[in-house]
Amino acid sequence: MTPNPQTYLDYAAATPLDPTVYAAMRPYLETAYANPSSVYTVARTTRAAIESSRATVADLIGCKPTEIVFTSGGSEGDNLAIAGVLRAHPKSHWVTTNIEHDAVLEQIKPLEREGHACTVVPVTSAGVVEVGAIEVAITDHTVLVSVMLANNEIGTVQPVGEISRAVRQIRLDRTRRGIATPLFLHTDAVQAANYLSLHVDRLGIDLMSLAGSKIYGPKGSGALYVRTGTVMDPIIYGGGQERGRRSGTENVAAIVGFASALALVQSDRTSEGRWLTELRDDLFKQLKIAIPSLILNGDPVRRLPNNLNFTVPGAEGEGLVLYLDQAGILASTGSACSSGDLDPSHVLLALGRTREQASQSLRLTFGRGTDAASTARVAAELPKIVARLRELGRVQ
Amino acid sequence: MTPNPQTYLDYAAATPLDPTVYAAMRPYLETAYANPSSVYTVARTTRAAIESSRATVADLIGCKPTEIVFTSGGSEGDNLAIAGVLRAHPKSHWVTTNIEHDAVLEQIKPLEREGHACTVVPVTSAGVVEVGAIEVAITDHTVLVSVMLANNEIGTVQPVGEISRAVRQIRLDRTRRGIATPLFLHTDAVQAANYLSLHVDRLGIDLMSLAGSKIYGPKGSGALYVRTGTVMDPIIYGGGQERGRRSGTENVAAIVGFASALALVQSDRTSEGRWLTELRDDLFKQLKIAIPSLILNGDPVRRLPNNLNFTVPGAEGEGLVLYLDQAGILASTGSACSSGDLDPSHVLLALGRTREQASQSLRLTFGRGTDAASTARVAAELPKIVARLRELGRVQ
Repeated sequence: MTPNPQTYLDYAAATPLDPTVYAAMRPYLETAYANPSSVYTVARTTRAAIESSRATVADLIGCKPTEIVFTSGGSEGDNLAIAGVLRAHPKSHWVTTNIEHDAVLEQIKPLEREGHACTVVPVTSAGVVEVGAIEVAITDHTVLVSVMLANNEIGTVQPVGEISRAVRQIRLDRTRRGIATPLFLHTDAVQAANYLSLHVDRLGIDLMSLAGSKIYGPKGSGALYVRTGTVMDPIIYGGGQERGRRSGTENVAAIVGFASALALVQSDRTSEGRWLTELRDDLFKQLKIAIPSLILNGDPVRRLPNNLNFTVPGAEGEGLVLYLDQAGILASTGSACSSGDLDPSHVLLALGRTREQASQSLRLTFGRGTDAASTARVAAELPKIVARLRELGRVQ
Repeated sequence: MTPNPQTYLDYAAATPLDPTVYAAMRPYLETAYANPSSVYTVARTTRAAIESSRATVADLIGCKPTEIVFTSGGSEGDNLAIAGVLRAHPKSHWVTTNIEHDAVLEQIKPLEREGHACTVVPVTSAGVVEVGAIEVAITDHTVLVSVMLANNEIGTVQPVGEISRAVRQIRLDRTRRGIATPLFLHTDAVQAANYLSLHVDRLGIDLMSLAGSKIYGPKGSGALYVRTGTVMDPIIYGGGQERGRRSGTENVAAIVGFASALALVQSDRTSEGRWLTELRDDLFKQLKIAIPSLILNGDPVRRLPNNLNFTVPGAEGEGLVLYLDQAGILASTGSACSSGDLDPSHVLLALGRTREQASQSLRLTFGRGTDAASTARVAAELPKIVARLRELGRVQ
């Protein structure tokens, strides 16, 4: 699917659109254009496409179709979940971690201005949050806990299932003590959807953000799972589409593409995960032999199969990415959103890396197009590039 | 472009995707998938596509490229403009009219809960707001006036240019009196973009919402014009895309499609407007002869060239739409968003129509595929359908 001989290793930033997904979308780009809210017969085609996509997504994550809200992507989903729940509960409190996506963390300040307080729980040096630390942060005013299922930069998988059990205990305790404040659990599963089960009851979550652009679906697509009974406001008001939770003419092609993409990645997730884990671990072993000073960022085992993130002492991440690009390897220093930034990654700093270490880091994320040739290329090129950059550093 | 022999007369609800627009989008669906925020060379393709689209849109509406924020559509644009400006000005006041789109009016209550007050100015029986009525509603606490450029149900064109001159006077007066509160003017130009000039300085507006799905562009696309100096918050926080005004991975294909669609409709707007006005006026004349009791809704002259909306005493709008559908004519009772609703249109009630009259109304909206054969078909079928419905009404 990569249109050139380059080795694309930035699947966490963007995925190509799967041809099958594109084929499913095309009727809604080419012929079936009716507004799904229109009442004449042909509009039933677009309405049916939306409802069948909703049923597909619901089936994949084990919920009712009415619990799916289609969005324009992961950032909108995170904003709708968090601002939506908090605005429906004036002057309330929420809990999150210090390695969440910017779509979560950047809401802290504006929500503070609206009277909501946030406790940011730090993760361990391995990039995993401790359930006990979340429990301790929850007060009687807490209405929402938001912990991502897997991190976008270092790939660490969070103990969302355990957190949900703790949340359930706190709910029971509140009931016993006659406290009516609800407590909802949100997870950003945008990066997890390719490799992990998204079953909402097994995860025990009330809200879950998903995005099409990271699962070989169309950009500008996504969904928010909202468990029945979750009290929340919309962030986009209007015609009342999506049962009033997300107004605006439905993007039919994007919805169909999102559902189709989610079905494909969820059906392949186990086999693809096994294979990518092997490729990734093998590559890191080779790199570690060639560059012994490499430091892995994030837990070696509790991480997404496709994620490799390490610090290369003495070599700037920006330089690594540029030299790799020249060598035909496309990589990243961290999240694509902040790739343009000069600030070091908040995720790497959260692990206890110094600012210097954080800026000397590289993220390689694998996907469907990755094979042994891809990793062999990295194993051959990266050590040379690191040597060159370290040389340059010494000269300066 | 209509894929069947049906006569589609609901262009205000949805437009087909223009083949040229689709062709412009395809590279970004099929091959160029890189995240525009990535730093390697191939990502320059998607970044460049966004920036070139931004320049196109800016050029068409006479503003700087930095003043364009790409959105997921008209509803998001209206919400970003209004909630964005108000949240940046705590406990403030805004003014709008009683025929705005639901994406504007549905924000009144939630913004009230956040401490903001709204004055809703009624329109005349012709569906046009009086500049004086807007002026009177503006207090020293008003930070925003939101008046649509053209109405989606009755097509009336609002005196936005005149309102902007009044707003400018009030700003000068505030300066003289040492009042620092800013006053911004927003217009929803979603329905106007096919036929009216969108030049922001001639209109004198600070914010303008546009949507791709009504201009033969892709659903899920749009833009908000934000004049430099406009103080506002985002509604979607995160990676800081769109200069921090709209976070989330950019939907490259949608952005390219939106710009391409806007360029096409703006280049054809005068000729198409002239031709559709003629067709429309001719049809209404014929219908009025066949059904003398028809009442035109909205100003006969100050309206979009493609809009015809009338009350048919004695015939339910819902019934008209269903019978027309059987006769191969696709029409609407009003805005598609509320087509599923049983409530009569708030726009028709604002004109002074009774609930019964409002429910006995039909909207026909023309577009590129409309020709003399389309209107002839309506002229032939509608009188028969009205007679049948009136007959049924009498029998019951």
